[in-house]
Amino acid sequence: MISEVIGEKAGIINQEIKKLLSVKEPEGLYSATRHYLKAGGKRLRPVITLIAAEALGEDSRKVLPAGIAIETIHNFTLIHDDIMDEDEMRRGVRTVHTLYGIPTAILAGDTLYAEAFDILASCEADPENVVRAVSSLARVCVEICEGQYMDMSFEERSDVSEEEYLEMVRKKTGVLIGISASIPAILFGEDKKVEKALWNYGIYSGIGFQIHDDLLDITGKERIGKDWGSDIVEGKKTLIVIKAFEQGVELETFGKGKASRGDLERDIKKLFDCGAVDYARKKARQYVEVAKSQLDVLPENEARTHLKELADYLIERDY
Amino acid sequence: MISEVIGEKAGIINQEIKKLLSVKEPEGLYSATRHYLKAGGKRLRPVITLIAAEALGEDSRKVLPAGIAIETIHNFTLIHDDIMDEDEMRRGVRTVHTLYGIPTAILAGDTLYAEAFDILASCEADPENVVRAVSSLARVCVEICEGQYMDMSFEERSDVSEEEYLEMVRKKTGVLIGISASIPAILFGEDKKVEKALWNYGIYSGIGFQIHDDLLDITGKERIGKDWGSDIVEGKKTLIVIKAFEQGVELETFGKGKASRGDLERDIKKLFDCGAVDYARKKARQYVEVAKSQLDVLPENEARTHLKELADYLIERDY
Repeated sequence: MISEVIGEKAGIINQEIKKLLSVKEPEGLYSATRHYLKAGGKRLRPVITLIAAEALGEDSRKVLPAGIAIETIHNFTLIHDDIMDEDEMRRGVRTVHTLYGIPTAILAGDTLYAEAFDILASCEADPENVVRAVSSLARVCVEICEGQYMDMSFEERSDVSEEEYLEMVRKKTGVLIGISASIPAILFGEDKKVEKALWNYGIYSGIGFQIHDDLLDITGKERIGKDWGSDIVEGKKTLIVIKAFEQGVELETFGKGKASRGDLERDIKKLFDCGAVDYARKKARQYVEVAKSQLDVLPENEARTHLKELADYLIERDY
Repeated sequence: MISEVIGEKAGIINQEIKKLLSVKEPEGLYSATRHYLKAGGKRLRPVITLIAAEALGEDSRKVLPAGIAIETIHNFTLIHDDIMDEDEMRRGVRTVHTLYGIPTAILAGDTLYAEAFDILASCEADPENVVRAVSSLARVCVEICEGQYMDMSFEERSDVSEEEYLEMVRKKTGVLIGISASIPAILFGEDKKVEKALWNYGIYSGIGFQIHDDLLDITGKERIGKDWGSDIVEGKKTLIVIKAFEQGVELETFGKGKASRGDLERDIKKLFDCGAVDYARKKARQYVEVAKSQLDVLPENEARTHLKELADYLIERDY
């Protein structure tokens, strides 16, 4: 079962996080910095890094710092995004800025950002490859910022196209999963073709993952720390909504800030009826299939199978 | 004249900034990102980097990306600090968050942060040394965050000691100047002793620089984009104020948010009368002298003299 593989790797990662990202002085800053890391999370990105290393026939321990660096970057983006989006809950706990205030939350993110690059630089690999990994991760971070900016700017627009949405999601979610999968290839100095295949695997999986995440907002059960239908009342331009708008569907609760359960249910029924939900489901599946097909250039082994299963898992999870 | 040397180097740096940090798409994000870089600034940190390379007998062009990376980090900290401190003016222009909003300002800082590491990774030096430079800059960034956190937490305390102030200033201002001076030694693989001397030169100069900056707030002429005595009305725990408080001086306008010119002048007179201003001036001078003495392990040459003159310049400027 892929969930067992994930759980086992996550255990290794959590131990390393405890070691590398402890709470230091000043305690007020570091407890904010570690808040989400302690609250849990599946560690999917570093899990992908470890499995990708194994798929290349390498010892996954060697890329553990790279995986932690990526998880650290992920956590920094969560803290800053929550400030920007004014979100109050995350992973079942209150968001960093609601607990510690915006100034400390900004600093907590900034601290993690720097720690990530320090940890990545500690990777025991050919220094030339470490430099390439640093540069690649830095470029990924730039793209994440661009993606978040696009996402925010979409809120003020009513004409966001599917193409624009996909570009936004590629940047906001795809590239960090892309680097998670390809950083072992960079660090071990693998062939460019292999690096590119793993990068694309991550990008396409990431896009599928994000579309699925959008779907969960309306099809999922109650989600920890996030309300059902919250993307709709917050006016988020998800693929589902973009598709529905293309067909002239009107949503009464869209971007209203809050809505009654009844009104929300009526809007969500419209999204199902017009085929937008099915369309998004199909798209998520297509992206994951393309992601998996990228791996065919890699040697056939158990880890490669796990990567494929993990991509499926990303769009099958129901929370 | 050292100011001419600074001006000449700043010209080279500005050209490179234009090249490496252009405005791209999404334009709304990148114009926020480049806002302070375009507004000017003396580029003191990268100027130090270039001169330090020359003091080591090396071609300063080779460390230009490292200097730009440090200036980029400096600019990122300005954007985020201005949000935290709720400042409205900087370098004679409106602050990024007042012009573009807090979410975009957070992202602008985050973008610069990543660009800095990408630029640093592009340095043409032995990759092993580049990795060390990345790691050193990352650790510096962590300390800057800690320093800013200390500075913020001092605002809620009345018992900040001189020792704590100096530790805060070392982190908030010293370490970035420390890395500015020492990064050429890291990149060229110089002896640890030389690297340490340049690091200490930067740390001590930086502390002197910050004490002088605090002095300018009350002794300087009107400063562009910052009001006379603003540190006092904002309740900043500067060395001057700490010294005055130690002697039981009471300041009526301290931390009051705003004050009449007359009340402010009366408080500032108290700071002069109790000897706190003189004490701070003496301390700034002492730090700069210690900074200069560090350089004695370096070979005697013109650039070394320039570094010493630059340290003097840091506490003699009147704006």
